[in-house]
Amino acid sequence: MRFCPYAHRAHLVLNAKNIPYHAIFINLTEKPEWLTEFSPLGKVPALQLPKEEGNPALIESLIVAEYLDEKYPDVPLFPKDPLKKAQDKILIERFSSVVGALYKVFLGSTEAAPDALTEISKGFDIFEKELSSRGTPYFGGDKPGMLDYMIWPWFERTEMLKYLLPEKFELDKERFSKLVAWRDLMINDQAVKGHYLNGETHAKFMKARRDNVHDYDMLV
Amino acid sequence: MRFCPYAHRAHLVLNAKNIPYHAIFINLTEKPEWLTEFSPLGKVPALQLPKEEGNPALIESLIVAEYLDEKYPDVPLFPKDPLKKAQDKILIERFSSVVGALYKVFLGSTEAAPDALTEISKGFDIFEKELSSRGTPYFGGDKPGMLDYMIWPWFERTEMLKYLLPEKFELDKERFSKLVAWRDLMINDQAVKGHYLNGETHAKFMKARRDNVHDYDMLV
Repeated sequence: MRFCPYAHRAHLVLNAKNIPYHAIFINLTEKPEWLTEFSPLGKVPALQLPKEEGNPALIESLIVAEYLDEKYPDVPLFPKDPLKKAQDKILIERFSSVVGALYKVFLGSTEAAPDALTEISKGFDIFEKELSSRGTPYFGGDKPGMLDYMIWPWFERTEMLKYLLPEKFELDKERFSKLVAWRDLMINDQAVKGHYLNGETHAKFMKARRDNVHDYDMLV
Repeated sequence: MRFCPYAHRAHLVLNAKNIPYHAIFINLTEKPEWLTEFSPLGKVPALQLPKEEGNPALIESLIVAEYLDEKYPDVPLFPKDPLKKAQDKILIERFSSVVGALYKVFLGSTEAAPDALTEISKGFDIFEKELSSRGTPYFGGDKPGMLDYMIWPWFERTEMLKYLLPEKFELDKERFSKLVAWRDLMINDQAVKGHYLNGETHAKFMKARRDNVHDYDMLV
């Protein structure tokens, strides 16, 4: 589904590793019948592997991402050190509190927004602090790594808040100085560019979705 | 927490790999103040690594398990092949539908039980079929692997259903013939034995919990 942040993760890893792939975007409200052949629960992303015996398919964005990192090690994304890798995975997991709060605002009522915005900022604090203590432009060091790509889809979508909220929410450039610099770098990363949509476009999709209109073909 | 199935996973991996460790069981209702130093969200398991610089701690059972598998490769638990490893992770992920349904029965009202039992059996069907198609006694082959250990805590707890339900639920020996044989083997595995509690003991803890009594020190 073109606007799914979890599917977005798979695109970013495939792009970063220069792995050739063919994307089929689906309608997630009226799912194609063949979908469960690849994804038993009908979720995206699903990655079919035509070079493997029996054309198996993988699901779950983090499982897909780690599989690609192990299978195509030329552009490594996770740290090699097991401890650093585990610590990055914990940060990816902790980002899910931000995801929950963001979607409350994306989809939700204006009344719920202030609390959710506080939760989002508190979540971002963790990543601002982390980037600061690492002292590198990206979480992955001098270039984006798996942690950068796994959280990026929601940072890209954060840009839509200025179109969705009356107060035109933007990241506080002082409180989140490192993250803002990181975001500006990420936007120019080749893998990110390959699947990038601006905040206005994300907002257009989301506004329709708030009215229960799922305009999956909006870009076609 | 001695009765937590997620913490159970960490014990199984540590036992299987013969890694020396010191367990501290905590009260999850009245959490010790120091817990968030190791586990920011106050969850278990949390694994402190005293040999690593700064005594870092890891959380999230699956992240802990994979870290231990990478750091201590002498007894490998995940398949080496990235595809097989990813497929086992997907099965671990799919097991979460069983977990949800099991806890409905463990904690819930008798009215919810029939639907949840159907869901549990449907979930077990996936694993019965998988074990059958692998043609090995364990999911990991001739001995238990990561998939075996990651789902075991809930199979061990399934034994309490005969003490919690009026109809004394047991696994259907025909429908789940492979799984029943697997369970009987797993109970005798050294790593499993090291943290094993029988169904009656699990049921005793759960019955108290139903009455909102958290008897964490029941075994002391």
